[in-house]
Amino acid sequence: MKRIGFIGLGLMGTGMSKNLVKAGYQVTVWNRTASKMKPVVETGAKAAKSPKEVAENSDIVVSIVTDSPDVEEVLLGPKGAIHGAKKGDIYIDMSTISPIATREIAAKLAEKGVEMLDAPVSGGVIGANNGTLSIMVGGDRKVFKECKPILEAMGKTITYIGGIGDGQVCKAVNQILVGTTMLGVAEALVFAKKAGVDVEAVHAAVSGGAAGSWQLTNNGGRLLKGDHEPGFKIKHYLKDLGIIAETAKADNMPLPATSLVHQLFYHCAAEGMMDKGTQAVVIAIEKLANTKLVE
Amino acid sequence: MKRIGFIGLGLMGTGMSKNLVKAGYQVTVWNRTASKMKPVVETGAKAAKSPKEVAENSDIVVSIVTDSPDVEEVLLGPKGAIHGAKKGDIYIDMSTISPIATREIAAKLAEKGVEMLDAPVSGGVIGANNGTLSIMVGGDRKVFKECKPILEAMGKTITYIGGIGDGQVCKAVNQILVGTTMLGVAEALVFAKKAGVDVEAVHAAVSGGAAGSWQLTNNGGRLLKGDHEPGFKIKHYLKDLGIIAETAKADNMPLPATSLVHQLFYHCAAEGMMDKGTQAVVIAIEKLANTKLVE
Repeated sequence: MKRIGFIGLGLMGTGMSKNLVKAGYQVTVWNRTASKMKPVVETGAKAAKSPKEVAENSDIVVSIVTDSPDVEEVLLGPKGAIHGAKKGDIYIDMSTISPIATREIAAKLAEKGVEMLDAPVSGGVIGANNGTLSIMVGGDRKVFKECKPILEAMGKTITYIGGIGDGQVCKAVNQILVGTTMLGVAEALVFAKKAGVDVEAVHAAVSGGAAGSWQLTNNGGRLLKGDHEPGFKIKHYLKDLGIIAETAKADNMPLPATSLVHQLFYHCAAEGMMDKGTQAVVIAIEKLANTKLVE
Repeated sequence: MKRIGFIGLGLMGTGMSKNLVKAGYQVTVWNRTASKMKPVVETGAKAAKSPKEVAENSDIVVSIVTDSPDVEEVLLGPKGAIHGAKKGDIYIDMSTISPIATREIAAKLAEKGVEMLDAPVSGGVIGANNGTLSIMVGGDRKVFKECKPILEAMGKTITYIGGIGDGQVCKAVNQILVGTTMLGVAEALVFAKKAGVDVEAVHAAVSGGAAGSWQLTNNGGRLLKGDHEPGFKIKHYLKDLGIIAETAKADNMPLPATSLVHQLFYHCAAEGMMDKGTQAVVIAIEKLANTKLVE
């Protein structure tokens, strides 16, 4: 059985690494804030002193950290995993970062004989804890097949998209859809409020048909209760919008709808709402319309 | 049992009036193009020579025509139903028109002692034929309850929203959601194509989660086959966008996302695509990105 290294024990990584331990793997973990390793070590994982030490004790290294520079640091930095890498190792980065940065990192790992998969996830902390994440995978198909049992210990829907970086492109597509759908929901509900109708009755009437979406049912429902708490935090969504913009720029891909979404989320930043959920983009529409969805 | 009049035997009205005949009602029909009455008369309806004559022979008059001026013509015009109206009659307008025009028409009918419901529908020709429409109803709640069995002969999900015009507001909300969600789907899929990934794999990977919507599954799926045929025609959607803009203007309600949708649908008009389905808004994004989703 392959020995697994796990780098990054944030809200997502904690649940994911525990699920690997539970599946019977020998897991060596590392986290920048050392105290966060304790709960995972208590379930049977070993703690390492650096990403390099993780790599020395593992055949497969999983990472899930915040942004492209963090992935570069833990994999390629001075104490990075690459310095403990052995030919034939596989690194699976499950962070949501730029597809372009992903391909650059993979090229550097390849020089050491290390294969890389990009495998960003959706499904949030609940999905991470319950092992029900959706995982979108890029990289060599043979390497993907070899790693599939490991991914299945952490997720429920595992989809192979294509070559290295393509998992990140898929995640970017996911985030374009999430944001554009959410903005439409916010705008539609505030329109209904401003028109003086019973917004809850409207929400119920339109949710089941051609207007329906996960965002309308879930985040729309939260908005009707005045609930702006995260699900998914605005600060993380703004990071993802940056990745989308960078990817689109490299492809000369105009994004009229997503750009509008991006601008309106900056309003949330200006209002200091970075730790609220993405549904709180409604405040931008409420401000424009000089009304509140819930008084 | 109430005698029903039915004005407007287009693609929607034909199936809807047939379902009223099937439910056992005595139905008197009128249509501007007289030949379209024949298929409904053959199932047992009577043909009238004018909306006025429809009204003279009915207790409840249902209308479903194209736009606000058409509703005004058939209800209030020189040969309009109002001239055959009797105190206590009920007029149910199932067209998709402006909530403002609806309230004006209702006020004129009220002067004659005629009650009005606005009851626009969604679910398309298939829903009209099968009696599975969603119907969003505005007007007096007592009148709604009285008419519910008639609406149930034509639809499956009947939702009372509020006072007169509120059904139309609900339909406008539905159309805001349909268009904003569809634009996001088009933009996300073209982004994926431009980034060089397997768009079908991406579509499959993201459809089941927080990015999911009826539009993504259905119209997104059509786009991946290069299918721009209607479902719902762009010319009708552009009419609805006009209603939305008029309603929003009256309420000082800015619509950043829906306005963008509106502008991009004008591109479809400029390209002579008025009879294509709403998913064909993808051509605006394809043009901007200088690519085609399906070669």
